[in-house]
Amino acid sequence: MTHTAPPLVDAGAAIERASFAHIDAHAGPRAGYDDGAWSLVRRLIHTSGDFAFNGLTRLHPQALAAGREALARGCPVVVDVSMIQAGLTPRRLGPLGVTVHQFNHDAEVIRLAVAEKTTRTVQAMRMAWRRGVLAGGVVAIGNAPTALLEVIRLVREEGVRPALIIGVPVGFIAAAESKEELMTLDAPPWIAVRGTKGGSTLAVAALHTLMDRALEGKV
Amino acid sequence: MTHTAPPLVDAGAAIERASFAHIDAHAGPRAGYDDGAWSLVRRLIHTSGDFAFNGLTRLHPQALAAGREALARGCPVVVDVSMIQAGLTPRRLGPLGVTVHQFNHDAEVIRLAVAEKTTRTVQAMRMAWRRGVLAGGVVAIGNAPTALLEVIRLVREEGVRPALIIGVPVGFIAAAESKEELMTLDAPPWIAVRGTKGGSTLAVAALHTLMDRALEGKV
Repeated sequence: MTHTAPPLVDAGAAIERASFAHIDAHAGPRAGYDDGAWSLVRRLIHTSGDFAFNGLTRLHPQALAAGREALARGCPVVVDVSMIQAGLTPRRLGPLGVTVHQFNHDAEVIRLAVAEKTTRTVQAMRMAWRRGVLAGGVVAIGNAPTALLEVIRLVREEGVRPALIIGVPVGFIAAAESKEELMTLDAPPWIAVRGTKGGSTLAVAALHTLMDRALEGKV
Repeated sequence: MTHTAPPLVDAGAAIERASFAHIDAHAGPRAGYDDGAWSLVRRLIHTSGDFAFNGLTRLHPQALAAGREALARGCPVVVDVSMIQAGLTPRRLGPLGVTVHQFNHDAEVIRLAVAEKTTRTVQAMRMAWRRGVLAGGVVAIGNAPTALLEVIRLVREEGVRPALIIGVPVGFIAAAESKEELMTLDAPPWIAVRGTKGGSTLAVAALHTLMDRALEGKV
């Protein structure tokens, strides 16, 4: 990743502004979100075309502050799939000095997943912990419930403390349950969407919202 | 991209099978899809956690055959965002000999977008045409309605003939309209989802469905 990507050209930026205005006008009453939380929910709606995130989105009370502060310090970001990594814009990562980590293709991760009959993403989260990027980092899980459950286990059993956990895994096998489990944590703070919906585009949208806030703090 | 990525480990493959079985059991009556179309719709539901795609998904009668045949020949794939590129698995691309093209970061594309006050993705589609990868290729638009409208214009005004157009742009500004426009084409065949929903994960799911069919044909 280079830090020299150009900004959105004017036409793209104008479309984004019009989209946000449309969402504000048509999303209906906010499901209990303050202005800060709404900036996140709005972006989740923008990225999915789905107003259901006005309601499904849940935030720990310290989530936005924790994410903003950690990213403003240039904390590592750990993700479960390479699509999230590809979606994060260099124009945000560069100025913050944030690096993105994903270990699914690591040979040791693959060997351990086969040997222990777990998923690769579970082993990838353990590898992130051993490499020292989970503690103090922002973790974003967009795909694999097993990865989210492993992060929760590392928090509870190993005392690992990420700055923030973004849990938006998708699907019908353990995804909803893994997110309900995440929402029982007092610490670290978390962002989640209830139910089966989720995905890497939502993880990117949440990270971009937090990065924009971190960048504002830097100006 | 290398062609040496390992297959899904057993645990991951078992979760995918369980998810497909859950969808078959809980999606309700199929909204008019035959078995072939359902294999696509099911994967869109799997990747989004959203049963609404049983109904929102629309296919031109020749879409699956056209996509399968083109990919089995190793046709180029043109996408509008790098997240789609990142989501496509080397274990499918490699055996098919399919290459993926995306021109958003091309210096000439950026220069023309600024000069002509269009989006980068519009210019990227024109670049794909000039480079010869749009004709005969499979085009997948997951994000930008402007890119989809430009592909439709190239078909109508310039006579360009992709093998298949997958149109699943997301959002509230022209996305639904661009997809309705796509669905008026007699040729080339297309796959679309109605309304505001869409995104790069859906584009990847559609491409993976077609690639799996192309790979079956090769065995």
